[in-house]
Amino acid sequence: MSKVYVAVIGAGGVGKSFISQLNAYALRSKKYTISTILISRSSKALLSKDYSGLNLTTWESDISSSSGVKPPSFPDETLKFLTSAPGPMILVDNTSSETIAEEYPRFLSSGVHLVTPNKKGFSSSLALFKAIYAASEAQNGGYVFHEATVGAGLPVLSTLKDLIDTGDEIVKIEGVFSGTMSYLFNSFAPLSPSGAEKSFSACVAEARELGYTEPDPRDDLNGLDVARKLTILARLSGLLVTEPTSFPIQSLIPKPLESAASAEEFLAGLAGFDGEMHKVKTTAESEGAVVRYVGSLDVGKGEVSVGLRNFDRGSTVAGLKGSDNIISFYTRRYGERAMIVQGAGAGADVTAMGVLSDLIKVLERLK
Amino acid sequence: MSKVYVAVIGAGGVGKSFISQLNAYALRSKKYTISTILISRSSKALLSKDYSGLNLTTWESDISSSSGVKPPSFPDETLKFLTSAPGPMILVDNTSSETIAEEYPRFLSSGVHLVTPNKKGFSSSLALFKAIYAASEAQNGGYVFHEATVGAGLPVLSTLKDLIDTGDEIVKIEGVFSGTMSYLFNSFAPLSPSGAEKSFSACVAEARELGYTEPDPRDDLNGLDVARKLTILARLSGLLVTEPTSFPIQSLIPKPLESAASAEEFLAGLAGFDGEMHKVKTTAESEGAVVRYVGSLDVGKGEVSVGLRNFDRGSTVAGLKGSDNIISFYTRRYGERAMIVQGAGAGADVTAMGVLSDLIKVLERLK
Repeated sequence: MSKVYVAVIGAGGVGKSFISQLNAYALRSKKYTISTILISRSSKALLSKDYSGLNLTTWESDISSSSGVKPPSFPDETLKFLTSAPGPMILVDNTSSETIAEEYPRFLSSGVHLVTPNKKGFSSSLALFKAIYAASEAQNGGYVFHEATVGAGLPVLSTLKDLIDTGDEIVKIEGVFSGTMSYLFNSFAPLSPSGAEKSFSACVAEARELGYTEPDPRDDLNGLDVARKLTILARLSGLLVTEPTSFPIQSLIPKPLESAASAEEFLAGLAGFDGEMHKVKTTAESEGAVVRYVGSLDVGKGEVSVGLRNFDRGSTVAGLKGSDNIISFYTRRYGERAMIVQGAGAGADVTAMGVLSDLIKVLERLK
Repeated sequence: MSKVYVAVIGAGGVGKSFISQLNAYALRSKKYTISTILISRSSKALLSKDYSGLNLTTWESDISSSSGVKPPSFPDETLKFLTSAPGPMILVDNTSSETIAEEYPRFLSSGVHLVTPNKKGFSSSLALFKAIYAASEAQNGGYVFHEATVGAGLPVLSTLKDLIDTGDEIVKIEGVFSGTMSYLFNSFAPLSPSGAEKSFSACVAEARELGYTEPDPRDDLNGLDVARKLTILARLSGLLVTEPTSFPIQSLIPKPLESAASAEEFLAGLAGFDGEMHKVKTTAESEGAVVRYVGSLDVGKGEVSVGLRNFDRGSTVAGLKGSDNIISFYTRRYGERAMIVQGAGAGADVTAMGVLSDLIKVLERLK
């Protein structure tokens, strides 16, 4: 049994689910002994100072008890603690923090492996993206995997890697990359209308109540989450997008509401713009189509875009249900018809699964 | 640069495409020096006796020239030659030979890694399947990857592995697993009929002329190819199917034609049964459905089946085009809606890509 050390930063929805899955994996693994030495939240942490490993069954009550301590400073104390582990070390960043992502190169250079669903490191400045990969590819650099940054647990980045590694050429990637946007448009402009037509603002309010949006839905409607995912796919496909905002992003936030003081004020104001969205929807319908919020990447033309587009009622994108994602890869080898990956692209369990399968990929590659 | 040795048995359509992709990969790889020491066809082979590596650009003319020698005997001389290589050794079996597959355990036990699109080893007797995995998992056993045995280059087995490794439970897997059957039924019972209705036998004859079927179409129509793929998925999902014939397989070969002396005689006779298939098609149409040839695996119920089934016109399966495959994974975590992988599931280039991406997975795992 090889012994491997794991540190988990961020223990919210995805983090909790990840720790539970990691616990089960550690118990059934016959090849690896996994010792989790750090679980850290913003204000409290659990540390296994002697590296013997934390109890992953009781960690939630432990962290709230007197065992919970002030988290080690980041990056200095954390890096020191991690690099002093007596064996291979994997850092799992389950936050969405840019501050943490900015330190990835330092951790990777020190030989710490990294798995994360945090998009920030890979979709912010191009300099950071390059620094992360350079650190990983340097001698004794740690491995980096971030499958869950696009499509949660869906095999999107691993498929892209296989295509590129084997010499295929990516022509175009397009699809529905946001569970929130998917749910919103499947309910606002359904393929099979139920008769009870709902306004766009009512759909947003409903999606928010059901937990499908961020607390402030503007964080979804601005399109930046989708733009970050497209930035990651573009860069991995060789299209070195400078920033996640350096291509056209269609925001669904009406200009006058960008500065609304609260989510509630925004939602109240949004109803005033329902007419515009209704027109977008009926125009699509008159063409036998439905409107959807998609991202698109054309490697040949060097173009990336994010926004509304009409899809034929018979198309796969139009047929999407619930909050499912769909990602279509057009490549030289696959020709006219795409290779398609489809399914739930959000949710704590499937996101955590993407993170854990990355962690297993690191384990399998350890020398 | 780590040096790795590769032996390729079988250099037909997939084998040729594989060697061309391997050549390109070897030229651009900055991490591995790949030395191909054997390319073997049924009657002729190229050997690099000093392990310095064959020329992958000129191999086709070389093998037909005086450089082409009698292949080393299998398994004895081949095994001896491979295990004497001065570094990690990967065997690529691009044949569909059962005789070769039966020797996988010996090669794996000797530390030779194996990648293959050959279904035989994994879909014949359960004893062979178990012996292969036991040999691979034993101390110093070689790795085994066989992504291209199901869905060619589509990420099917890797996705199944990720789901299982991370502790998800496979509930059901179903889909269209044969490019031939996909093409045949998309043209016999199209979603959008063109008006010019074709009989089933005419569709089979046409598919054969276009190279979509085996030389004798009965080798597709008997359903055994699909049954072998289902056997592999079932076993990897923990359902230990004894034989690829130990569950219901609906053959599309009319009983009286099973013994037809030739493919031509079979095709001539098939027209006499067009009425039956026409009835199957119109019955589906009267229910607002289309008929498709699918495989299905219910892990909970322990049931596997292969045959015709009707699909709602609005379903993803009904919307399939050309010779595309579709594979739907229903799991505990993904819930009601499946995770779906879709795209070309046959063809030399995409199959070879599946084999090469497996070979790269071996390289990445070498100690």
